[in-house]
Amino acid sequence: VTERAPLSGEEFVDWLRREGASRYHDAHRVHVLMHQGKLNKAQLQQWVRNRFYYQTRIPIKDAIILSKSEDPVFRRAWIRRIHDHDGNAPGEGGLALWLRLAEGVGLSRAEVEGLGSVLPGVKFACDAYVTLVRERSLLEAVASSLTEFFAPDLMSRRILAWQEHYPWVDAEMLAYFRSRVPRARFDSEEAIGYVVLHATTYELQERCVAALIRKTEILWQLLDCVEKAYVPRSAEAP
Amino acid sequence: VTERAPLSGEEFVDWLRREGASRYHDAHRVHVLMHQGKLNKAQLQQWVRNRFYYQTRIPIKDAIILSKSEDPVFRRAWIRRIHDHDGNAPGEGGLALWLRLAEGVGLSRAEVEGLGSVLPGVKFACDAYVTLVRERSLLEAVASSLTEFFAPDLMSRRILAWQEHYPWVDAEMLAYFRSRVPRARFDSEEAIGYVVLHATTYELQERCVAALIRKTEILWQLLDCVEKAYVPRSAEAP
Repeated sequence: VTERAPLSGEEFVDWLRREGASRYHDAHRVHVLMHQGKLNKAQLQQWVRNRFYYQTRIPIKDAIILSKSEDPVFRRAWIRRIHDHDGNAPGEGGLALWLRLAEGVGLSRAEVEGLGSVLPGVKFACDAYVTLVRERSLLEAVASSLTEFFAPDLMSRRILAWQEHYPWVDAEMLAYFRSRVPRARFDSEEAIGYVVLHATTYELQERCVAALIRKTEILWQLLDCVEKAYVPRSAEAP
Repeated sequence: VTERAPLSGEEFVDWLRREGASRYHDAHRVHVLMHQGKLNKAQLQQWVRNRFYYQTRIPIKDAIILSKSEDPVFRRAWIRRIHDHDGNAPGEGGLALWLRLAEGVGLSRAEVEGLGSVLPGVKFACDAYVTLVRERSLLEAVASSLTEFFAPDLMSRRILAWQEHYPWVDAEMLAYFRSRVPRARFDSEEAIGYVVLHATTYELQERCVAALIRKTEILWQLLDCVEKAYVPRSAEAP
């Protein structure tokens, strides 16, 4: 058996970017309609409510990633992501900012926080992300975070689209999206550095790509569930 | 079936203290001889080397505990324990302090860090701690940390004993033991508050006690392995 030689770092990063970009949920109909200003208030609320469940899984999956590392240097860097979402004090951090967004679209913070109206399929998809991180290697778990590559663009476009199309949402409530632009850039660079260094065989590179693809499927599935339940075909503009 | 009523908080804490105190490894022959000044340099080194494996499991099990919590308030508090061991910069934190202790007893930092000479039984016992935390409930995982109750006393006695009996170890190298006195006190009070609040049935209280007992068995087993390999009966004073 001859093993295939690993791709160069540059080729490997290109491959990840290609597979990720072609499947990223910025192209999902729910996001397209959202950014065209074609979702109504109730639909925006449902998206905010359901996506919050995804947000709550982030510090959990990051803590699992932390627990998979034997390296204090890696852990010292990665732990920042947990602080980013949980904050260092009540009211701080990404989860708190998402709940402000929920208030901004007219929802009750407590109701969203209670997760009572999250669609079952959204839970299955987000829980599958936690399972992926738990069951695969540290390398694949880190690779699955690389959708962050594409997040800064999406967040930047979203902020503009919301300010244009949904002016009833106080711009101050969009702080979560703003906070993610620099953080997602930093996080994805950190993660790409890690996977390039540690995916030392073609087989490991393939596994990283597979983990990233699975992650894009999870994000896509979340929006499929929201679309099926709340965004009928007739929402499309003529 | 009549369920047994839960113990009061005070009775429950007494029960935990009793079961923990009677099994705590301060009474293990290796610790007794250590504190009597009856271990030789090679034996101290073996203890430091093997116990380091336990130390490396602490941030890992704490990250698993973090990942089991749905509550940002809990996570914000518990994450401190990971920083305590990993530090916020290279050379800081409990793991780095333990490696200084290793140098203090004449070992090579790199050799200890490499974990190459850790006894198999020590690995099994410490890995069993990580497995316990992974497989049992968050409540039981927190309860298993309650051996920290008894740590401040042991650390305080150890510092005095080492200064008296092993003056060739620079007192500055005992920083790990010193750092644990206030931290173990704070950590155990935090954990006891959590278990008293959440062990709301007798059955849950029983499970907490069982988890604490299992943890004392793990600590004891570590020393049994060190004793079997390096501290023959003849080490006993007449």
